Amino acid sequence: MTEGLRDTHGEGTRLDPWLGAYAARAQAMRASEIRALFAVASRPEVVSLAGGMPYIGGLPLEEIGDMMRRLIVDRGETALQYGSGQGDEALREQITQVMALEGIAAHADDVVVTTGSQQALDLVTTIFIDPGDVIVAEAPSYVGALGVFRAHEADVVHVPMDAHGLIPVALESTLARLQAERKRVKFLYTVPNFHNPGGVTLSLERRPQILEICARYGVLVLEDNPYGLLGFDHEPLPALRSMSDDGVIYLGSFSKTFAPGFRVGWAVAPHAVREKLVLASEASILCPSNASQLAISSYLNHSDWHGQIKSFREQYRDRRDALVGALEENIPSASWNVPEGGFYVWVKLPAGLDSKSMLPRAVTARVAYVPGTAFYYDGQGADFLRLSYCFPTPDRIREGIRRLAGVVDAEMETVRIFGTGAADRSGSVEFPSPDLA
Amino acid sequence: MTEGLRDTHGEGTRLDPWLGAYAARAQAMRASEIRALFAVASRPEVVSLAGGMPYIGGLPLEEIGDMMRRLIVDRGETALQYGSGQGDEALREQITQVMALEGIAAHADDVVVTTGSQQALDLVTTIFIDPGDVIVAEAPSYVGALGVFRAHEADVVHVPMDAHGLIPVALESTLARLQAERKRVKFLYTVPNFHNPGGVTLSLERRPQILEICARYGVLVLEDNPYGLLGFDHEPLPALRSMSDDGVIYLGSFSKTFAPGFRVGWAVAPHAVREKLVLASEASILCPSNASQLAISSYLNHSDWHGQIKSFREQYRDRRDALVGALEENIPSASWNVPEGGFYVWVKLPAGLDSKSMLPRAVTARVAYVPGTAFYYDGQGADFLRLSYCFPTPDRIREGIRRLAGVVDAEMETVRIFGTGAADRSGSVEFPSPDLA
Repeated sequence: MTEGLRDTHGEGTRLDPWLGAYAARAQAMRASEIRALFAVASRPEVVSLAGGMPYIGGLPLEEIGDMMRRLIVDRGETALQYGSGQGDEALREQITQVMALEGIAAHADDVVVTTGSQQALDLVTTIFIDPGDVIVAEAPSYVGALGVFRAHEADVVHVPMDAHGLIPVALESTLARLQAERKRVKFLYTVPNFHNPGGVTLSLERRPQILEICARYGVLVLEDNPYGLLGFDHEPLPALRSMSDDGVIYLGSFSKTFAPGFRVGWAVAPHAVREKLVLASEASILCPSNASQLAISSYLNHSDWHGQIKSFREQYRDRRDALVGALEENIPSASWNVPEGGFYVWVKLPAGLDSKSMLPRAVTARVAYVPGTAFYYDGQGADFLRLSYCFPTPDRIREGIRRLAGVVDAEMETVRIFGTGAADRSGSVEFPSPDLA
Repeated sequence: MTEGLRDTHGEGTRLDPWLGAYAARAQAMRASEIRALFAVASRPEVVSLAGGMPYIGGLPLEEIGDMMRRLIVDRGETALQYGSGQGDEALREQITQVMALEGIAAHADDVVVTTGSQQALDLVTTIFIDPGDVIVAEAPSYVGALGVFRAHEADVVHVPMDAHGLIPVALESTLARLQAERKRVKFLYTVPNFHNPGGVTLSLERRPQILEICARYGVLVLEDNPYGLLGFDHEPLPALRSMSDDGVIYLGSFSKTFAPGFRVGWAVAPHAVREKLVLASEASILCPSNASQLAISSYLNHSDWHGQIKSFREQYRDRRDALVGALEENIPSASWNVPEGGFYVWVKLPAGLDSKSMLPRAVTARVAYVPGTAFYYDGQGADFLRLSYCFPTPDRIREGIRRLAGVVDAEMETVRIFGTGAADRSGSVEFPSPDLA
């Protein structure tokens, strides 16, 4: 007798009685490839070069434990209570000091603390994106950002990078084309430093060019910068936000420079945008965790966090060297970039190989990576894969690459015999693959 | 020369250059009345009967501090790392034991851990609500839920309560009317125990009736239960979820039974819905905080959490008695319910008074409350206000009510002289105000 949205008669009943009740956006949600990989990579016998998990073993756990104890005993009535939607004021002040390392002059009022910078991505998308709106993003782009954009039914248009980051003339021609097509381009999503997954850094020379192009087309810039302080060879480049106050929303995170387990990130936005972000965050979570925020604040106050970042940089440089050295030795038929910071190497497979169809065989050989297709909105990227060197030890990295080399060799043998592979199916790729090697 | 969405010419420029770029949903976002009140209520000279902040001073901070230290020292490499999108498995198992106290037999697989139950509200709304879809909710309803529903452009239709909770015949006639109007009713939002703000509890007799009506109309039930274990006089009633596995999404929280500063809540949902909730949560925050989750898990393992809840119940009962006693003594012209648990008393003002316009005068008199209008989607409720007794001491509660009595007396005098008030402007109210007295 029902005319409601619950399916009490049809075929779908046994699977999901609420199938007819979901919102349109829920249809577009699908399990990310990284999610499935987390389950695989957690098995101890697998060398995971997949996830972006930082090397937490490098932290002084005794010292952090003592700090947490003092925090609860001395300030528990604040740390365990609700806080403000915008975030703890003292922490926001400290965040402005962290950002000053990249040339940003911001006020604590400009900062919104979020549940990891992932929540900041979600909030920005929430307040700007109607279904069908366009987001311009590097090719490839961070898989977690693409997941948010997909959940909000955005259209993502990729713009190629090269070894110096996003290519200004490619950005300009893409925006001109989209303008001619009367598309509503809401923002440029970019990871300028030690790109995930590309590993490259936007050159100093190109930074004002990118800003000028976006300003001319009336397009906001969303600068996502989790890795900026993790450069191996030189001081951080000035952030895009340091060159434009009201044309840039900047996202930062403590997940890579300290620890992701607290889930503390932040956004800096033009004043009126910041107001909307706070309202959207309050609707979403009421307020970020005071316990987490005050833990970060204590850490910044009482620990040698500059020294810890220096130590992380040295550890990650060793691991990058281990990864790149092992690639040279074991998989010379592939090509890759050598990142100057961050967590990732972007590898182009020998012609004919498909990173997605190869993955099950890699996992069988006890090594995991992320296939390149995860980092594109449109299915391209099968000839690439992302390797992370942040978590395993150098020895484990070398062992992982030896295992991967065996899988690649076997795939190449198959391609030689049967002649099939990714290269034969790339006719539908709309944008050129980036040249990152 | 731009045809972009940035306003570089118009009047809006000085205020917000991105005014033309926001999504439709961002237009509907507005500052909640509770948010503005948090700023006021934080001034020490104000007795705040406004916020729902639990009495954290009742927690054993030394013991919790030691526990946090051990957690970081012994399990820091997990606590400080990323975790799974669904939440820590051991904690999800413990959550099933907490829910067993209200008769729920769930599996850890059915549980999704969230950043407070507010995030669970947001996720459920995200996966079910397209703009214009209808949510049926009690009149009045929790202001934070209304904020989420508004952010997703839902239409909320209120159904009256009485002293025994949501009225079944009123629910049925509302659903029949909405069905006749061919509205898409997605779910019933209900707080069955110690309602916020109404203070009432859905009677045992009515529980299966509500479920039967919703099942008949194909409407999902969203059961929000943060206060269920905080009853003063008797054991918890069985949850709606304990009577229906696949017709109910259940939301729980540690914010009221332990501490809100960790931001840990959860949802229990039918299997296919749970899958969607995890995907939506991953898009929104990647994963909940491991540090927070493991802190809760340790607390449940090592502390006498049953004893702590018993202690909270006794403290809150004393505070309720202080509030109700002070109302009887000082504001006999108003009427109110006497809640049997939870945090809130719902007060009907004497005829002609308007709780919203009275609020600035109350704050001037150094007492704060939440006006009734915050708890309705349609502007009604000006003749009600919500008083919270959870945070201030009994002495402060009595002092706050004495101050409020002075404000009410002055307002009544004004009404007697000028004859204006809320009662004169209630012609547009669509649904009857609940009789909670």
